[in-house]
Amino acid sequence: MRDSGTETDPVDGENVTVVYGAAELVVGPDDETGIVVVEDAAFAAVDGRVVAVGSTEDVLTEYPLEDADTSIDATGKTVLPGFVDPHTHALFAGDRSDEFVAKLRGATYEEILAEGGGILRTVDAVREASDDELVSNLTDHLDAMLAHGTTTVEVKTGYGLDTETELRMLDAIAAAGDEHPLDVIPTFMGAHAVPRGMDTEAYVDDVISDQLPAVAEQGIAEFCDVFCERGVFDADQSRRILEAGREYGLTPKIHADEFAAIGGADVAAAVGAVSADHLLHTDDSGRETLVDAGVTPVMLPGTAFGLGAEYADARAFLDAGYEVALATDFNPNCFARSMGFVATLASVGMRMTPHEAIRGITSAAANALGRPDGTGTLTPGSLADAVVLDVPTATHLSYRFDTNPVSTVLKSGVVVHE
Amino acid sequence: MRDSGTETDPVDGENVTVVYGAAELVVGPDDETGIVVVEDAAFAAVDGRVVAVGSTEDVLTEYPLEDADTSIDATGKTVLPGFVDPHTHALFAGDRSDEFVAKLRGATYEEILAEGGGILRTVDAVREASDDELVSNLTDHLDAMLAHGTTTVEVKTGYGLDTETELRMLDAIAAAGDEHPLDVIPTFMGAHAVPRGMDTEAYVDDVISDQLPAVAEQGIAEFCDVFCERGVFDADQSRRILEAGREYGLTPKIHADEFAAIGGADVAAAVGAVSADHLLHTDDSGRETLVDAGVTPVMLPGTAFGLGAEYADARAFLDAGYEVALATDFNPNCFARSMGFVATLASVGMRMTPHEAIRGITSAAANALGRPDGTGTLTPGSLADAVVLDVPTATHLSYRFDTNPVSTVLKSGVVVHE
Ligand SMILES: [Zn+2]
Ligand SMILES: [Zn+2]
Repeated sequence: MRDSGTETDPVDGENVTVVYGAAELVVGPDDETGIVVVEDAAFAAVDGRVVAVGSTEDVLTEYPLEDADTSIDATGKTVLPGFVDPHTHALFAGDRSDEFVAKLRGATYEEILAEGGGILRTVDAVREASDDELVSNLTDHLDAMLAHGTTTVEVKTGYGLDTETELRMLDAIAAAGDEHPLDVIPTFMGAHAVPRGMDTEAYVDDVISDQLPAVAEQGIAEFCDVFCERGVFDADQSRRILEAGREYGLTPKIHADEFAAIGGADVAAAVGAVSADHLLHTDDSGRETLVDAGVTPVMLPGTAFGLGAEYADARAFLDAGYEVALATDFNPNCFARSMGFVATLASVGMRMTPHEAIRGITSAAANALGRPDGTGTLTPGSLADAVVLDVPTATHLSYRFDTNPVSTVLKSGVVVHE
Repeated sequence: MRDSGTETDPVDGENVTVVYGAAELVVGPDDETGIVVVEDAAFAAVDGRVVAVGSTEDVLTEYPLEDADTSIDATGKTVLPGFVDPHTHALFAGDRSDEFVAKLRGATYEEILAEGGGILRTVDAVREASDDELVSNLTDHLDAMLAHGTTTVEVKTGYGLDTETELRMLDAIAAAGDEHPLDVIPTFMGAHAVPRGMDTEAYVDDVISDQLPAVAEQGIAEFCDVFCERGVFDADQSRRILEAGREYGLTPKIHADEFAAIGGADVAAAVGAVSADHLLHTDDSGRETLVDAGVTPVMLPGTAFGLGAEYADARAFLDAGYEVALATDFNPNCFARSMGFVATLASVGMRMTPHEAIRGITSAAANALGRPDGTGTLTPGSLADAVVLDVPTATHLSYRFDTNPVSTVLKSGVVVHE
């Protein structure tokens, strides 16, 4: 028996947040590829970390509303862990919507490149942009992401393609992240494309011998990523770049098997990548290679949607018992910033159940960022990053195609959007 | 020469709204299948109707800001006519998200029907719902639509399937519409499905002899619609229902050629339907039949998206010089309320340019509702229904896949959402 809310209250002097009454609350992953859902549920957080989760009655008994510094009535609503977006190119400049129109009119990728379009056009725009413009552009996108429930996001460089601009991009990512409630995780991706007029091998040397040492010295980037693809960086080049990055303390990630399977899965396993992303052409053996090596597969259904292309075979991973992470791949070619929309696409396009999709945008996505520490869950001990959705069940996140159901976002127990 | 803003001001004593500085403003349709776009643009409205549209300089010369009762600075933004959604089943009760999940798991339409799912499940829920619940459900959806830029919406009955409930649905549509800034246009669709245990011919008789006279006497419905489809109502039954409706003053609309071409296009032409909707299996001759008869084709890409099905061939209409209207088809099987998302789907799924899509959700959609009176345009004389989007060009409406860019909605010159 406890005398709740009196001088023995366990939380006196601390900052207590309680979210209660939720029709459904998603705690975290289950033993299969789904999630644990509690009905009529609540969680409590003290000083930014979850301390209790379960039925509203149980949580409010232990953490009474009258002692809470912040309390949110989620009656009729659904509470999820904050969304984790583990793959974006959200820092860019310029406008490439005209290429979207050209593609609708039937222009090929080659024609768009010949017109000066594609990644290298964004590289030109980023090189010309001021530092302030870069930070401001990214901040606007972080605002939109937060409003759609994302509380942790990875952002890649790769529109600089020279040491100076790659470092400037990392500075901008750090500056925007410092000022924003979202957790922003920087990835160095000098190996995103080969600059105009440069030989690929010479550029690989530049990434390894010039960019990587400077990036390491700057000390901002956490991951190193490479676009392992036919016509871009081959498996050997990708492996060399990721190994060099690892030497400098950068954890490997890889864009693999998007347009062709050229060995990206093997490279991912060989270098111990934390994730392999895209995976449209990965076969059973590639899947086994990845999962045996502890590489989290990341699917980017927004990219397929935007291109009107095939979706990756998420079911092949899931049916084999492997989890699948999801990301927006937000970039000028895929203007998607909402993980809720990604969940819809994962369901409609890849036949992931809404619960599998929610795992994909929360705890699985945290694994794709090397954070199996409770990020993307509301298990006790985790950061209290949570999203309150104005829908009656978790299933509605996928079921509602277009509208943003987010009503409140909490970051470390603090309301940062409503 | 005019002495602007003095006692000769033409608008003294009237209610003046000015929206100015827009990076782009869409006035209305052009002579082809696109739209007229003005840069650095403004419009002015007096007492709810557009009186001037053009360059900001010209409009502000005639209607100076200091004389405006309402003025909106749209600098860096895009102004479009309010969106018109000409096909929804937005009035319903109950929750069918479990069927969405069942379909993802591979259940067939027949299996879902056998489990008691599908339209008739919603019919049960609507028959059981109170009048207040029906009005409240629809109002919530109208709120979401307005927040996404829709200023005129059609709502169908068809979840009653008996005279009493069909009339109750029309009452609820009228009641919700009366209290809401959105223009809500009621369509009677008793011929949406055949009730359980009833012979189709007997039900057609019920619609014609019992429901239609009562609906006519009630005096709410403007249109009569029918689901002309294999296994539902055949061409002859559809024609009889629509002709009977027309006798009672209800303008015909038709669901045609969604799963099979069973003569819906011919029926549409024969009865003088204002629109034919879905049209997935319409061929060249069907297209000619429709357009020659002045029937506006309406495409519903959200439905195809949700089913993971083929999209209708919008390009075949457009390339032949015909305009194409777009709608959400919002219903428990297609939880889509945003016409901006429909524009994205029209582009990505049907290769309509963003400008063609904007025409599809504005003036062409107004034609599908028999309103070639300036609805869905900002031409002088039209109602000043407008949407201010926080995007730099009209193209961005399709280009941005997921986020809602609406910053302000005006209905008859009055700000109704921001
Ligand atoms: Zn990428
Ligand atoms: Zn319909």
